Amino acid sequence: MPVAKKIAEAACRSSWIRQMFEEGACLAEIHGCDKVFDFSIGNPNLDPPEEFHMVLEDLVKDRAPGVHGYMSNQGYPEACAAVAAYLTRDQGVPLSGEHVVMTCGAAAAANVIFKAILDPGDEVIVPRPYFVEYGAYVDNHGGVLKTVASLADFDLDLDAIGAAITSKTRAVLVNSPNNPTGRVYSAETLAALGRLLERKTKENGRVIYLVSDEPYRRIVFDGNRVPPVLAAYENTLIATSYSKELSLAGERIGYVAANPAIEGIDQLMAGLILANRVLGFINAPALMQRVVTRLQGVEVDLTLYQENRDRLYEALTEVGYDIQKPQGTFYMFPKSPIADDLAFSSELLERLVLVTPGVGFGFPGYFRLAFCVERRIVEGALPALQELGRKYLG
Amino acid sequence: MPVAKKIAEAACRSSWIRQMFEEGACLAEIHGCDKVFDFSIGNPNLDPPEEFHMVLEDLVKDRAPGVHGYMSNQGYPEACAAVAAYLTRDQGVPLSGEHVVMTCGAAAAANVIFKAILDPGDEVIVPRPYFVEYGAYVDNHGGVLKTVASLADFDLDLDAIGAAITSKTRAVLVNSPNNPTGRVYSAETLAALGRLLERKTKENGRVIYLVSDEPYRRIVFDGNRVPPVLAAYENTLIATSYSKELSLAGERIGYVAANPAIEGIDQLMAGLILANRVLGFINAPALMQRVVTRLQGVEVDLTLYQENRDRLYEALTEVGYDIQKPQGTFYMFPKSPIADDLAFSSELLERLVLVTPGVGFGFPGYFRLAFCVERRIVEGALPALQELGRKYLG
Repeated sequence: MPVAKKIAEAACRSSWIRQMFEEGACLAEIHGCDKVFDFSIGNPNLDPPEEFHMVLEDLVKDRAPGVHGYMSNQGYPEACAAVAAYLTRDQGVPLSGEHVVMTCGAAAAANVIFKAILDPGDEVIVPRPYFVEYGAYVDNHGGVLKTVASLADFDLDLDAIGAAITSKTRAVLVNSPNNPTGRVYSAETLAALGRLLERKTKENGRVIYLVSDEPYRRIVFDGNRVPPVLAAYENTLIATSYSKELSLAGERIGYVAANPAIEGIDQLMAGLILANRVLGFINAPALMQRVVTRLQGVEVDLTLYQENRDRLYEALTEVGYDIQKPQGTFYMFPKSPIADDLAFSSELLERLVLVTPGVGFGFPGYFRLAFCVERRIVEGALPALQELGRKYLG
Repeated sequence: MPVAKKIAEAACRSSWIRQMFEEGACLAEIHGCDKVFDFSIGNPNLDPPEEFHMVLEDLVKDRAPGVHGYMSNQGYPEACAAVAAYLTRDQGVPLSGEHVVMTCGAAAAANVIFKAILDPGDEVIVPRPYFVEYGAYVDNHGGVLKTVASLADFDLDLDAIGAAITSKTRAVLVNSPNNPTGRVYSAETLAALGRLLERKTKENGRVIYLVSDEPYRRIVFDGNRVPPVLAAYENTLIATSYSKELSLAGERIGYVAANPAIEGIDQLMAGLILANRVLGFINAPALMQRVVTRLQGVEVDLTLYQENRDRLYEALTEVGYDIQKPQGTFYMFPKSPIADDLAFSSELLERLVLVTPGVGFGFPGYFRLAFCVERRIVEGALPALQELGRKYLG
């Protein structure tokens, strides 16, 4: 076999999201772009904000020696400091640049964290439904992912999380606003989770980290804010990116930030920086580090996402779909009108509407709509979605 | 402990190169930049070529939808095709874009390859001296690095490599032009290595890959060319970057290319693309992919590197240093005038000359000079280097 056994197996399973994304590109070629309605991937369709273009055009004129060369594996001190200043305001917990590592996006940030903290066999708990690539990110570094069902409204089931924690538990991984549900965990829920992890850490005599993957932090609706996770629990690490809030998913820029109150924070930061290097990231892309240094707190205009959410939610609930209204992200996770989400996704696919089946999030019986799309895609897909809704739910 | 045991151990060992690099920054702050002569890190001091700036400034004006968004995990088809066309010319082996995966630099490329091909316990053989991070890149994915001494002139010792191959051998990793020696393996040597690996692959009944890490491919002196490695052996994978030839080390852009003749090439490419995704790279930075698409075969002006090499080689051999003259890269690996290369490096450090001890390349008794530096650094360091040379070798 030309590849490792694990990779061969993983390739068979592949990612439902990516499969649909490739299928969509295929169908678009056959039927024409305007006939295919692709809700499969979270590739922001909004252009980056005007500020991004201005800063980028300005920075590329800078020909100072070394601006495209290596810097510290941690990232530019100015970039780390800018992130820390932003987080200090946003989280209400004082951070300095030392507590930040610039990374090649949030997926890199998660891998860097797990490389730094996981001993072989260590467990990471994640609530279902979840972004299934988490399984690979944990397995890459010898860890074991354990999933725990969420409550019916997709809020955290703290009893279930508590029951799942063992002496091998090294981290609980949360993602809020949540992919695929759009759920935002409240400050109360996070505080209760923090208390649980504090108690379990004491019991275990070994720290249980809260890893917060939050690339959708600034994609929230109805004027809501995402509660600060660093304020909820001492042993918290943030993994995030600018992919969604600045529509830069292809440029691979994000960071890890750690609560300065973590015991042994200096050793932890050194471990994160080392992991960033030895995993082959070396450092986050230089130019994009310099770009985001100047774009803290900037985000795309969310009007389109909110309009898409409202239009889809109303039109689908009207014909009987069971949906938790997303509070953030650009995802919606309706219950599939028939139990078999794969069969339902196939029926939609026949009508050139591409969604990701719930099984792709470890949660059969549901499907995900990524509504980071043009309004015409929403309107074009509604007849098929409503027709099937009426057929099964009417 | 806040970090994994393996990471804590690795942090203690750390990288000699990076340690010296950080030490240099420290010393420069104390003594002033002009008093510290830092040969510790391969951070190209030449600015990127004019074409790079022109292409970059041109591309950032492009505000077409999605130009900063996700593309296929493999990279832009145009980027892969441009690399393939270049390699077809350079290697004399016809490749198409399908045989290329764009990556976040060469370190990423190496990690992607090892993730894709290594089963637990698989061995990777590398000639000493070697870039010690290879050990981490192999270990990250459950492999075991085995080192084999090179010949006295730093050419490959094919007998030793042959003797080191077992049924667990999955790859031989070569780096030509070589860091730290500057050695370029000849076409004859590579062909003989190819024949050896072909024979051993047959004996094992399982492919042994030749992994060629070649970020210095275009940094060669005296008008030499690096012989094509794809032509030497069917089962060859190239890992490389634009970090050195375009002075873009901070931007993290490179690629993996595979010989199309590899049996099961489609499965291998799918595995590489999958590895690129699940390791958290997702894809190489979008903008830099588009930049290098238009800069195939372009490189920095090598005059300064060649002048530095000549000046250092002459001035050091004159006082008795034993040096293999580098054929490429911007490294020189002289024998330490005293057996203890750490003690010698410390003596240099006292004189504010920073080099990397040979132990940092698994090869005690030598030291590395990274001469990708301004001419004044070379001139400023020569008195101390010559003084110590005369002291011990005179």
